[in-house]
Amino acid sequence: MSKPGTSATGKIWTGNIVATVTPFNKDGSLDTKALRENFQLLRDEGIDGYVVMGDTGEFWALTDQERQIVTETALDVASGEIPVVVGCGAMTAQESIRLGLLAKDVSADGIMLTPPIYVRPGQAEIEQYYRDVISAVGLPTMLYNIPKRHSVSLGIPVVDKLADLDLVVAFKQSHESFLEVLETIRVAGDRLSVLAGHSVERGFPAVAAGADGYLSSVEPQVMGKTAIDMYKHAVTGDYERARDVQLKCVELDHAIHGDAGTFPASLKAAMNLVGRPGGYPRPPLQEPNANALASLKTALTKLNLI
Amino acid sequence: MSKPGTSATGKIWTGNIVATVTPFNKDGSLDTKALRENFQLLRDEGIDGYVVMGDTGEFWALTDQERQIVTETALDVASGEIPVVVGCGAMTAQESIRLGLLAKDVSADGIMLTPPIYVRPGQAEIEQYYRDVISAVGLPTMLYNIPKRHSVSLGIPVVDKLADLDLVVAFKQSHESFLEVLETIRVAGDRLSVLAGHSVERGFPAVAAGADGYLSSVEPQVMGKTAIDMYKHAVTGDYERARDVQLKCVELDHAIHGDAGTFPASLKAAMNLVGRPGGYPRPPLQEPNANALASLKTALTKLNLI
Amino acid sequence: MSKPGTSATGKIWTGNIVATVTPFNKDGSLDTKALRENFQLLRDEGIDGYVVMGDTGEFWALTDQERQIVTETALDVASGEIPVVVGCGAMTAQESIRLGLLAKDVSADGIMLTPPIYVRPGQAEIEQYYRDVISAVGLPTMLYNIPKRHSVSLGIPVVDKLADLDLVVAFKQSHESFLEVLETIRVAGDRLSVLAGHSVERGFPAVAAGADGYLSSVEPQVMGKTAIDMYKHAVTGDYERARDVQLKCVELDHAIHGDAGTFPASLKAAMNLVGRPGGYPRPPLQEPNANALASLKTALTKLNLI
Amino acid sequence: MSKPGTSATGKIWTGNIVATVTPFNKDGSLDTKALRENFQLLRDEGIDGYVVMGDTGEFWALTDQERQIVTETALDVASGEIPVVVGCGAMTAQESIRLGLLAKDVSADGIMLTPPIYVRPGQAEIEQYYRDVISAVGLPTMLYNIPKRHSVSLGIPVVDKLADLDLVVAFKQSHESFLEVLETIRVAGDRLSVLAGHSVERGFPAVAAGADGYLSSVEPQVMGKTAIDMYKHAVTGDYERARDVQLKCVELDHAIHGDAGTFPASLKAAMNLVGRPGGYPRPPLQEPNANALASLKTALTKLNLI
Repeated sequence: MSKPGTSATGKIWTGNIVATVTPFNKDGSLDTKALRENFQLLRDEGIDGYVVMGDTGEFWALTDQERQIVTETALDVASGEIPVVVGCGAMTAQESIRLGLLAKDVSADGIMLTPPIYVRPGQAEIEQYYRDVISAVGLPTMLYNIPKRHSVSLGIPVVDKLADLDLVVAFKQSHESFLEVLETIRVAGDRLSVLAGHSVERGFPAVAAGADGYLSSVEPQVMGKTAIDMYKHAVTGDYERARDVQLKCVELDHAIHGDAGTFPASLKAAMNLVGRPGGYPRPPLQEPNANALASLKTALTKLNLI
Repeated sequence: MSKPGTSATGKIWTGNIVATVTPFNKDGSLDTKALRENFQLLRDEGIDGYVVMGDTGEFWALTDQERQIVTETALDVASGEIPVVVGCGAMTAQESIRLGLLAKDVSADGIMLTPPIYVRPGQAEIEQYYRDVISAVGLPTMLYNIPKRHSVSLGIPVVDKLADLDLVVAFKQSHESFLEVLETIRVAGDRLSVLAGHSVERGFPAVAAGADGYLSSVEPQVMGKTAIDMYKHAVTGDYERARDVQLKCVELDHAIHGDAGTFPASLKAAMNLVGRPGGYPRPPLQEPNANALASLKTALTKLNLI
Repeated sequence: MSKPGTSATGKIWTGNIVATVTPFNKDGSLDTKALRENFQLLRDEGIDGYVVMGDTGEFWALTDQERQIVTETALDVASGEIPVVVGCGAMTAQESIRLGLLAKDVSADGIMLTPPIYVRPGQAEIEQYYRDVISAVGLPTMLYNIPKRHSVSLGIPVVDKLADLDLVVAFKQSHESFLEVLETIRVAGDRLSVLAGHSVERGFPAVAAGADGYLSSVEPQVMGKTAIDMYKHAVTGDYERARDVQLKCVELDHAIHGDAGTFPASLKAAMNLVGRPGGYPRPPLQEPNANALASLKTALTKLNLI
Repeated sequence: MSKPGTSATGKIWTGNIVATVTPFNKDGSLDTKALRENFQLLRDEGIDGYVVMGDTGEFWALTDQERQIVTETALDVASGEIPVVVGCGAMTAQESIRLGLLAKDVSADGIMLTPPIYVRPGQAEIEQYYRDVISAVGLPTMLYNIPKRHSVSLGIPVVDKLADLDLVVAFKQSHESFLEVLETIRVAGDRLSVLAGHSVERGFPAVAAGADGYLSSVEPQVMGKTAIDMYKHAVTGDYERARDVQLKCVELDHAIHGDAGTFPASLKAAMNLVGRPGGYPRPPLQEPNANALASLKTALTKLNLI
């Protein structure tokens, strides 16, 4: 049996896949209008896929019912033409399975899985967690490594083993060292779609180096088509233009991760400032304070985004 | 109004408070017999309090019903003579409040609260989270800072503000820098019981420096009375003996955090090896493998613990 | 006045510039034969420049007289067709100036300067150090930032100011974050030749992203022409081949920085194993032990380099 | 043969040993008057020994002749009643030996040795470096580990081996983890005087835990007798007073390491502000700027030191 949905190139879930925000109203309720608008806008601008209920989507703050609304809205806008991948990170396999089956109930294209949150397990334990969740859920899966949030790293030897599973189709590598991105390509690039994390600093360089794409959050949702086109420039060999966009992304990144508040509250605020549907965050995150908003506004103005 | 339960010295929850393991049977079910035995044994050996549903207790793997059994068993053994504090860490205030009210339902003495797990909020967001949970739950509260697990630190300026709340009675400082322990004593020692984390390396030195005690997990549950007496040596001025125990703890720490598997699975295995009721871990953690157990056995033998 | 030696593209010191080893005989004396052979071999294989007396060259272990021999040998082989840049890192401006004037005495093309070694100064102090050395020496200068060795980072605002000096022509950025490489290009790429450090993991990606080249040490001196051609593939748009070489470099990097001993002793040993003139290290470094050499041999064999 | 100068307790170089600043005049020349005054003042206040040419002494900025003046002045004030230990850190054994023999020429009591500066050698290489320097110099030696400056750690297994040498009499442990201080005491406390680094945060706690003393720089040179007495309080069992002083040191530490400029320029400025003989720093360090001095003044005023 081959990997599900595998294309001629042997890869699915490639290109610029965006981890979307979940817009809330000021009263804390889900802003379903802004939610749909955001998916539609990104779609119109050429995005290659959605990840919902990632960190950017404040997954921790959503009820089951809200998760379903978010996934269904994304699927509706995607119309089967671009994938909708649902983040199912949790502290135990049991909970990740439960979330994965919710995603399956509404026919999501697949799930995204980090190692168990917070628990800091060893490599063998991480591998077992993945095997348990993947076999119980039965959907195509994107592995996701982001050591700075988990205090453990999903090691490449484990990725290498999991890559042999038919359901494991992609790997988002957000390890801070670029070496790990290349090492992932080298070891598992034959079987997985390797997607770079931190695209705001290394999206294009990773594609140049052989990645199949990248996971983005900041730049497409603030800069729109300009940022989304970066991947197209990269794969059509227009490195000059890809470079220009990437450097603009770096500037944007400084604005979002500087004094602008906690991510993704800062991203949402920036979206609002440029007239895109960011909405408000939910506790424990708060709308950035007045100083943060002012410095964000200055930075976005300097970037000609407002 | 003064702090609840405040003693003549103005502090409650002092001394050597142990974060207890939650023993499971090999089939994964809660081992209620071992659970009670462990509480009783520690009590008989002179422990000053229990924290249940901490990281050591694998809180992430317990159902609500099991949480209640654990808390009630601890309360039953404690007989109102030593405090039972219930860990209520979660990713949102909403969930922490829910867990706190569960603890209140069974008359726990108080709760222990870290900043929101995984989310990495800013200081103002962390403060708001604490205020929301503490006022909604209404139980005496131990703040808990452990940056290596949260990738954010509960800053001392926030602790200073929270210390003014009547319900905030203690602070467990597991920041890796000893400076932060001292700084906590300096800034909030007048209003809070300051308890050092990482007691296996700095329990006695922290008490010498003015801490009101420490949170332990490894040494009392493996070494028993010898370790538990360290606090008594410290406060009665028998520094010589306190030192001797502390150095033995350091050796034990190497055994537990070396090649012995993931914490607290390694701790449970060590407890079993010395004949104490550790039980098995639950996924995502696994019983340490044969090599790990062998190296653990060697280390414990060298320490004359088996 | 414009920058010295500025080409039509406004940049000098571009492409693949190699930090060369300094081969010693087993008795510790300078191996002048191997030294010349190494320069010649790299030259024949198409290298774009030499940095001598870098960390790779064990600058700390050389006498003044030996420094001059190394520089003159490099200059002799370079024949004025490729640049010879002399590392002048030291703990004070006074000593760096002394070393820079030694380099000037033998007509080196320029100097390479890190922030003051070991001292961990602040940004204003680093800037003053650079200004003092550059003006006193009067040679074209490559700034060099490698925070993991200095425990301080040469910040981009300081680079931005120094880039206005006519004598500052290049910047080697070895900050571990790829973001800093891009930020350097963005801020100072108009005035400086931006060269990526850690080329073994990010040489080609950096060039794709707009860097003017990179500083290498491991891959050209072990793999030779194959590695050196990577830059040519990159600038002629043959990204497929550039990628292939880069991934091979990653594998090599694992071999050199794994269990193979201290860098650059490990690099020298690898050179010897593949039949290139690496020579022996000088104390405090030691020839890798038998186990290290065996594991290095296995790795190089797997890479078809022996 | 036993250790040189070994007392009844088997230890020399115990208590509160201060790493002294080297005061310069505004024109950069050595301020020999302030130098002597500082030694004398500390002596009168009860200090237990001097380390000269440490990081605090800006060893990197001194000529050989100035090193001798500093050492001889210290020896003159010490009058053979307290030890004068000379820092001989360098990048190679050859240079450390040269500096050690300079110290021997003027009859210094011993030398202090870090692992080779900057080079980042492996453990076996570090051990060999120590053996080479110690046997060539032939003076009592204090090992010194400060990983944050060297990017390598002098491992305890190497310390354990070196402790068997008669000339190795003391070990300054500035590893950031308190665990390493305790581990040092456990492993080598029988043969070495174990002295804690970072005394400003853990001087008294380390002594309580069994250290033979500590190396200080900030607190005795700014606070004088109050700080110096902390050790006496500790060993006479007056923990209450030792604690009070330690907490005051923590506050002072914040002032010196906050916005007050680069260490030890910040320390020198603080000394001047409280009327002690700090003098000026030499490049690459600079006198703290006006803002830094103002914030330092505020902090010292709050501490009732001015």
